[in-house]
Amino acid sequence: MKKLINAPDDVVSDALEGLAAAHPSLAVDMDSRVVTRAGGPRPGKVGLVSGGGSGHEPLHAGFVGYGMLDAACPGEVFTSPVPDQMLAAARAVDGGAGVLQIVKNYTGDVLNFQMAGELAGEEGIEVRSVLVNDDVAVEDSLYTAGRRGTGATVFVEKIAGALAEQGADLAALVTVAEQVNARTRSFGIALSPATTPASGRPGFTLAEDEIEIGVGIHGEPGRRRGPIGTAAQLAETALDAIHQDLPLDGEVLVMVNGMGGTPLIELYIVFREVRRLLAARGVAVARNLVGNYVTSLEMQGFSLTVCKLTEQFTELWDAPVQTPALRWGR
Amino acid sequence: MKKLINAPDDVVSDALEGLAAAHPSLAVDMDSRVVTRAGGPRPGKVGLVSGGGSGHEPLHAGFVGYGMLDAACPGEVFTSPVPDQMLAAARAVDGGAGVLQIVKNYTGDVLNFQMAGELAGEEGIEVRSVLVNDDVAVEDSLYTAGRRGTGATVFVEKIAGALAEQGADLAALVTVAEQVNARTRSFGIALSPATTPASGRPGFTLAEDEIEIGVGIHGEPGRRRGPIGTAAQLAETALDAIHQDLPLDGEVLVMVNGMGGTPLIELYIVFREVRRLLAARGVAVARNLVGNYVTSLEMQGFSLTVCKLTEQFTELWDAPVQTPALRWGR
Repeated sequence: MKKLINAPDDVVSDALEGLAAAHPSLAVDMDSRVVTRAGGPRPGKVGLVSGGGSGHEPLHAGFVGYGMLDAACPGEVFTSPVPDQMLAAARAVDGGAGVLQIVKNYTGDVLNFQMAGELAGEEGIEVRSVLVNDDVAVEDSLYTAGRRGTGATVFVEKIAGALAEQGADLAALVTVAEQVNARTRSFGIALSPATTPASGRPGFTLAEDEIEIGVGIHGEPGRRRGPIGTAAQLAETALDAIHQDLPLDGEVLVMVNGMGGTPLIELYIVFREVRRLLAARGVAVARNLVGNYVTSLEMQGFSLTVCKLTEQFTELWDAPVQTPALRWGR
Repeated sequence: MKKLINAPDDVVSDALEGLAAAHPSLAVDMDSRVVTRAGGPRPGKVGLVSGGGSGHEPLHAGFVGYGMLDAACPGEVFTSPVPDQMLAAARAVDGGAGVLQIVKNYTGDVLNFQMAGELAGEEGIEVRSVLVNDDVAVEDSLYTAGRRGTGATVFVEKIAGALAEQGADLAALVTVAEQVNARTRSFGIALSPATTPASGRPGFTLAEDEIEIGVGIHGEPGRRRGPIGTAAQLAETALDAIHQDLPLDGEVLVMVNGMGGTPLIELYIVFREVRRLLAARGVAVARNLVGNYVTSLEMQGFSLTVCKLTEQFTELWDAPVQTPALRWGR
């Protein structure tokens, strides 16, 4: 294992110190392991909290800032954060209007956010949760009952975050977040595995020419393995899986996401193919993200996330955002 | 070789089509292979042109936009663009105030930009060039007489780009660009090699525990090979090499740059160490970039770039920039 780390046990705390030093717009509570916006909560604004295992950067801490999240709770690598973190986050961001938890569907995350929500409730903080489960690859998985949550998280965080900034109440945010999740699907393909610092070994192995089709963001198995094809073929495989589950039409928001070890030049090639295939079905890519947003350490591969836009989604997507990983319009 | 491509020969053109589709702010001339800002040149503004081999994305096309470059010329992967591209770029961005070419010091790039500058001059376009040669690792290299140009390119493009936006003339831009280069140094370390699509084979090989210390952005050999150490040790190696060449003091701008295959979480750890080591020497990191900016396909590793700030540099660094890869303040 060759990694730029000091010791496996220090990876998350060292990285959080680096994150805090790099971004004055963030406040990092090293004891609680909670990343918030510098300056504290805005009275009357619903606080948006997300979190999950580390190793998926910039998710989630990279999306803390104006127009998106108020707090992120990073767990150990590929490990759920604990309820105490989530409770500390809820306390830190509650401006009196309650807290929305954005939870990717992994069993540990779901249970811990639920417990944290109950504890916060006992303290008088109103907490609601939305579950993100957009990955069509498999119905149940290693760490999941039901579908895994992946790329849609970025869309939910951005769109609900923009609405929260406008002063929407908790119920309205739950509604829009659920709508985004309902209209979004993802599918991932891995060319190589990732190695967690703690294990020191690749999470799985692939033959020289083999890929994992439908892979999860922790290297969970997908639908099948097969030989690598062209970028056009891989894009079609991912898009077909999505389209079969949620027939696409009209205007869509597309993310071609790198798993962490894939060159950007390759992601642009995949985007070219996705856009071409969608155009052939009469579907227009109205908005897009191409880059590393939901990674799996150094895994090579990509995931495709497609959201069927509504007028409201587009408007909220275009609204100003100022986070380390997503910035525009202000 | 597992890559998200259609065919080795189509990598650059397919990626350029993807880039054009992803970023409406860019105009991509597929025939000339030139990426410019949409909307054409601004009369009276000096046009900033850069370019070089592909495979280093987001460099250079990702830095085309308000406050930075006016045009980028992408060559084939790890191969210099041709003079015709650079000439087309000069024509496309000349607003009557001349063109500044920002050239990384690789023999092919230098010769071709020189030829393009002469051809443009014959057409009445005033062209000046600045050579970027910040990499302290080695004096001469595989493709270079003198030092290689790497991370400083981003700083030169940003700082000169901001000054150009303010209406500075060509001579003033040459001066500031040369000053940035003179006050900036870089050093890179590779944990793994990259494979170009054309060759299908890794550019070099390393043992299980071995790293290349002082590596170039095309996998050129550095100073030596050695066993991997901690992030703290690697940061110190890179910083020592820089400090030995250019003693650091006061305030600096630091980039911890991923080579393309390194997880973001590791880059934050390296940044933590760099900042700590600089603080111990009484040097303050006043500005920073942590992420993938000058990559080498899927190579794992990082490069460290440090610029000794002046008041002018800081002001121009903070000025608004709107490009696919760098965005703030507007």
